[in-house]
Amino acid sequence: MKRGLYVGRFQPFHNGHMQVIESIVKTREVNELIIGIGSADTSHDLRHPFTAGERVLMITRSLNGLAIPFYVIPLEDVRRNALWVAHVKSMVPPFDIVYSSNPLVIQLFKEAGIPVHSSPLYLRESLAGTVVRKKMLEGDTWKESVPPEVESVIAEVHGIERMRQIAKSD
Amino acid sequence: MKRGLYVGRFQPFHNGHMQVIESIVKTREVNELIIGIGSADTSHDLRHPFTAGERVLMITRSLNGLAIPFYVIPLEDVRRNALWVAHVKSMVPPFDIVYSSNPLVIQLFKEAGIPVHSSPLYLRESLAGTVVRKKMLEGDTWKESVPPEVESVIAEVHGIERMRQIAKSD
Amino acid sequence: MKRGLYVGRFQPFHNGHMQVIESIVKTREVNELIIGIGSADTSHDLRHPFTAGERVLMITRSLNGLAIPFYVIPLEDVRRNALWVAHVKSMVPPFDIVYSSNPLVIQLFKEAGIPVHSSPLYLRESLAGTVVRKKMLEGDTWKESVPPEVESVIAEVHGIERMRQIAKSD
Amino acid sequence: MKRGLYVGRFQPFHNGHMQVIESIVKTREVNELIIGIGSADTSHDLRHPFTAGERVLMITRSLNGLAIPFYVIPLEDVRRNALWVAHVKSMVPPFDIVYSSNPLVIQLFKEAGIPVHSSPLYLRESLAGTVVRKKMLEGDTWKESVPPEVESVIAEVHGIERMRQIAKSD
Amino acid sequence: MKRGLYVGRFQPFHNGHMQVIESIVKTREVNELIIGIGSADTSHDLRHPFTAGERVLMITRSLNGLAIPFYVIPLEDVRRNALWVAHVKSMVPPFDIVYSSNPLVIQLFKEAGIPVHSSPLYLRESLAGTVVRKKMLEGDTWKESVPPEVESVIAEVHGIERMRQIAKSD
Amino acid sequence: MKRGLYVGRFQPFHNGHMQVIESIVKTREVNELIIGIGSADTSHDLRHPFTAGERVLMITRSLNGLAIPFYVIPLEDVRRNALWVAHVKSMVPPFDIVYSSNPLVIQLFKEAGIPVHSSPLYLRESLAGTVVRKKMLEGDTWKESVPPEVESVIAEVHGIERMRQIAKSD
Repeated sequence: MKRGLYVGRFQPFHNGHMQVIESIVKTREVNELIIGIGSADTSHDLRHPFTAGERVLMITRSLNGLAIPFYVIPLEDVRRNALWVAHVKSMVPPFDIVYSSNPLVIQLFKEAGIPVHSSPLYLRESLAGTVVRKKMLEGDTWKESVPPEVESVIAEVHGIERMRQIAKSD
Repeated sequence: MKRGLYVGRFQPFHNGHMQVIESIVKTREVNELIIGIGSADTSHDLRHPFTAGERVLMITRSLNGLAIPFYVIPLEDVRRNALWVAHVKSMVPPFDIVYSSNPLVIQLFKEAGIPVHSSPLYLRESLAGTVVRKKMLEGDTWKESVPPEVESVIAEVHGIERMRQIAKSD
Repeated sequence: MKRGLYVGRFQPFHNGHMQVIESIVKTREVNELIIGIGSADTSHDLRHPFTAGERVLMITRSLNGLAIPFYVIPLEDVRRNALWVAHVKSMVPPFDIVYSSNPLVIQLFKEAGIPVHSSPLYLRESLAGTVVRKKMLEGDTWKESVPPEVESVIAEVHGIERMRQIAKSD
Repeated sequence: MKRGLYVGRFQPFHNGHMQVIESIVKTREVNELIIGIGSADTSHDLRHPFTAGERVLMITRSLNGLAIPFYVIPLEDVRRNALWVAHVKSMVPPFDIVYSSNPLVIQLFKEAGIPVHSSPLYLRESLAGTVVRKKMLEGDTWKESVPPEVESVIAEVHGIERMRQIAKSD
Repeated sequence: MKRGLYVGRFQPFHNGHMQVIESIVKTREVNELIIGIGSADTSHDLRHPFTAGERVLMITRSLNGLAIPFYVIPLEDVRRNALWVAHVKSMVPPFDIVYSSNPLVIQLFKEAGIPVHSSPLYLRESLAGTVVRKKMLEGDTWKESVPPEVESVIAEVHGIERMRQIAKSD
Repeated sequence: MKRGLYVGRFQPFHNGHMQVIESIVKTREVNELIIGIGSADTSHDLRHPFTAGERVLMITRSLNGLAIPFYVIPLEDVRRNALWVAHVKSMVPPFDIVYSSNPLVIQLFKEAGIPVHSSPLYLRESLAGTVVRKKMLEGDTWKESVPPEVESVIAEVHGIERMRQIAKSD
């Protein structure tokens, strides 16, 4: 029995994240997957428009039917890199492998002696977040970049209106 | 589609909590249930022996096969009662009803205009936590008070040894 | 031009506080008085039932017509005694004298080189807070212990109902 | 009886803020006005040169003689947008209307179901803050942009010298 | 080259602490010793009368001439047991062994895989802190329980007067 | 007996800091020197690569043999300029003079009535930090800019590898 951890900010959860998760499942390296929602306490700004609860809903609905059991856990920031791994370990079930392409996340888990699997695939997905948010501000084509369940959550919480209102301060 | 919220500290998750959840499901008032783990950031003391991640594992495994979908979400303390409802709302998916017997929780949600369902059943279960922890320090009979999945999580994390070591400071 | 500072928790503001303020005004030592509301971030518990905003309202209304200008300022806790004087100084207009009977407050301002005026009168008033809250839980005689403006604020915010609900957890 | 809330950072309080307050009073929509001092815990940097206490003094003196009663309340940051409305509500007396031109403030109060009145007038005044601070660093013409009471508070606390010293780090 | 860590609150540093340190040096297990001052951010209350800086001074002066090099490091509380070991590791030089008799400290380092040396000697010394503080409030015999350098630091900072003033609130 | 305070971030401790300390010792103004490590709680980012503990080690080893006794004290950030001087005073032994070229540090100590000695020498050294970190990312010439003891600490903690890994996120 092995458990993997995949951490992201998921602002919003999009097709790039979906592909990463599907590729992890395919490797059969882990029997269960924890999805940690980073910066859970940050919302209502242009880079972090959605609350942790809204992101829990996006992810859980999108992963309905995933081949392995999964946990979706909000992770508040601790604002001290040296404490972050201990914080994550206290908030989620025990895990054996970390999946990440974030250079800082990789370094922090390595210093803590926890194995990290990285892949160029993961990297592209983090860039995609900025692109998706830009599209959301500007028009409708963003809908192709996210699972349909995410689109419906964003509609329920009036996410596009929220982003456009906040954007006025720029 | 209605979603309920049930908040507890679950130190540990025991049969009393299980009965409450089953009684909520039976009412058919809600289609989905959020289980909020209070004081998620407190662990390793006699009243709060387990981490949030350990409690996530206890609850998720015990509820495997529950008749309705559920979310298990750690809730760090905010240490300000007047902000607590806003904090909870930001960390979990939107909800319509709160299930609680805690007098402060009831008051805070009522002041926020959110309906709370209370029942004497819920009250007994909070008393049970103290009793279960006392039994854990003293011997083996605690195992009858918790679901078998909780017993195995506590064994995996050497929970009894942890509690007895910490208890030496008294 | 001299300004005085009087700090209390005012849970609730009562006749004892009123007498202290009137006795300060009578000395003519200061031209203006700052009233600092301590533990402004604590509310909804039995020792601190009211929010800072509710206490601002109680005090401002009760002091309507005071002979000298006054400021009513909420002071959140900093939870570090060694920083408390610097915190207070940053949150209120400059002041020359502190009025207090609290032994810790006296010590902290003295170590900072700020003069403190103390009087047995001030001491009795702090004891009175506990007595008034006890009466509020038990019946109606508390109304004689507070200015009529405080009674009306407590009615507006359903303060007695709040206290009795919270008290159920004991 | 209606109470309005007007929130700003007031670094420093200037003629633009004064005009907004006078225009609110003229509408006769509210009987009392709360002035909330945002980022109360930030001072001694170029965008936030003044402490909350210094700003309380500027505002209270400048509004001396205002046609309706007013409250001046420092509001420390909570650094979580999703909790900010609950924080403000706990620190100030109950209010019915919010006056603001800040897009985020408008969004947060709207999500909380509290009516917000906005006007282009309010917007200009926020831009003016940056301009006034720039003038303060460079010469004397800033004095025309603030009420005379603000000028005297800034002189008392040696505000210009403070700003110019801090500016050396650039 | 091996480094040891010894953590205490040192309110105040007394002969019991001195004996523990001397017994650690005698074992020759470590070439250098780190002394971590716990609850560094707590002061001016009856259980924690002295600031971290005052305790740094007491310890450094008392250990003048110790046979091995030592570091004296204040450790602010993190208020989360699950993060405490990571916090300590980030604040002090790398260490190989921990010396402690505190049951919680032992448990936390053990869960982190760091060896802990315990001895009944260490236990007695923690009890002694309460006794020394009680004597300080009541009379002069406390001076026999501390190194002479500690007595002089307490005199310099008027420590006994501070404790007796704060004690009045009881 | 006079004690001086010198505060820096020391990311890393380099020859510029060394020269400042030697020039302070030469003036014979102080008998003891406190070295305060600012932003002690920030590490693992490009501007703050090293933990407080690593910096304690760099400084203590480099100053071995200094002509006067010295204290090396980590100072966590308080994130409120108005409280910073009180924070520093509580964490370090009492001091009479501050040595700094940082404009904000100078202003904050001056407002607190504590004398500050400044010199152009100190200024250059702060600029040097950025230069040294840039060299560390790019090649080997940084070793000439730091004391040999710092070079060995950085090797022990694999500091260059850490910096280059973190830099990948840019």
